[in-house]
Amino acid sequence: MLSKIGSFKFHIESYVCDFNEKATITLISRLLLDAASIHAQEREFGYEHILRDNVTWVLSRLSIQMNEYPGHNEHFTVNTWVESVTRTFTQRCFSFINQSGKIVGYANSIWAAIDLQTRRPIDIASWRPDMLQYLVEEKICPIEKMNKIPQLDGIESCMGYTVRYSDIDINKHMNSAKYIEHAVNTFDLNIFREKFINKFEIIYLAEGIYGDKLKLYKQGISEDEYVIDTKKGEESVCRIRVNWKKY
Amino acid sequence: MLSKIGSFKFHIESYVCDFNEKATITLISRLLLDAASIHAQEREFGYEHILRDNVTWVLSRLSIQMNEYPGHNEHFTVNTWVESVTRTFTQRCFSFINQSGKIVGYANSIWAAIDLQTRRPIDIASWRPDMLQYLVEEKICPIEKMNKIPQLDGIESCMGYTVRYSDIDINKHMNSAKYIEHAVNTFDLNIFREKFINKFEIIYLAEGIYGDKLKLYKQGISEDEYVIDTKKGEESVCRIRVNWKKY
Repeated sequence: MLSKIGSFKFHIESYVCDFNEKATITLISRLLLDAASIHAQEREFGYEHILRDNVTWVLSRLSIQMNEYPGHNEHFTVNTWVESVTRTFTQRCFSFINQSGKIVGYANSIWAAIDLQTRRPIDIASWRPDMLQYLVEEKICPIEKMNKIPQLDGIESCMGYTVRYSDIDINKHMNSAKYIEHAVNTFDLNIFREKFINKFEIIYLAEGIYGDKLKLYKQGISEDEYVIDTKKGEESVCRIRVNWKKY
Repeated sequence: MLSKIGSFKFHIESYVCDFNEKATITLISRLLLDAASIHAQEREFGYEHILRDNVTWVLSRLSIQMNEYPGHNEHFTVNTWVESVTRTFTQRCFSFINQSGKIVGYANSIWAAIDLQTRRPIDIASWRPDMLQYLVEEKICPIEKMNKIPQLDGIESCMGYTVRYSDIDINKHMNSAKYIEHAVNTFDLNIFREKFINKFEIIYLAEGIYGDKLKLYKQGISEDEYVIDTKKGEESVCRIRVNWKKY
């Protein structure tokens, strides 16, 4: 049997860094999603395996806490494991290790396994009891349960975009990380000079389809906390909470 | 002395693939720019080295020819070398090798070394004669000299975007590959199902600055050939020619 915890090493290339010469929150989300895919794939519950049963993984929530971002040319390790499997959701955790071996962040994600015919979640534990052997039940990941992210109504949209070719990923859906990239673009460049995103939470509620015109709404909750709502018409597609921290 | 030709191996991660499970032209441009950076860095004429003389590299033209794109999870090797150094320009070439060892494409790029004070190109050969020892003068790269790409006037813009955080790169400028990502987004998703970008040429004319509102203009030249002009007001920021080929 493979180890329960998968460990994946990435190299931070210059072309994925921002003007601070650091990895972005968007990149961190891409790396963790990639690590999740490979971890599941190696243990035979990856996208390709479950598709044979006409099932797919759908990311529902993701919380990331970063105390430090890896810099240009550094190595960055993503550890990932499954912490719990319930009737409808799988909880997958992550820890991030910098090249000196220090833990620089954690993430927690909630996934549903969806029947592609009925579009309804299926009971993971009874459908794939073999997944349970990989559970790491110790609470290694210190990220708290995500609080509700409010819908934003009655304010003006601060940005909009159309879902295009570069937003569509290998799974033929709008890429989970692309929602993050667009949402983070609502912030002025100046904030990135003084502060970094310390905590990032996203809840995925609906799906952006090629050609959709999405609108972003942003509201400051406190000096360092913002909510960003991405909507298709009146409907929230995803909602984000960002917490900034001074360098 | 280091070898004249640098060889850099990349792994094509799922999160950089398009819905066809292939690397995109944008990714190819990022990988080749990364290879160019490292090659120059290792030979002591990289961005960091020349900045000490208050000089920076500016990409002027790039032509890419791809016969096949690497797929998800494949290895992809970028070879790069400097073919010529003239008074004002350096010509850097690339070849792309797939994981079976087959050459699947080439690229050619033209760079100026700009004095950051005067913003004028400097004579590379007299400023850094040491670069000449790395010249590979054989014509390995079969890509022809780029033909003029016409400016597009008198037509309606097909898309626009504002330069935002995710467009700004480690060099604090709009990332050369991001112009490509946005321009390629002007094509409908359907074309990517039947055809691939066989030849891609871009000429960089001005610089997109944070907050700029850029507009894209596109014109079909023949069934498989398009010109895309990215403008800031009346001024072309970059112009692109794309040639498609049926799978």
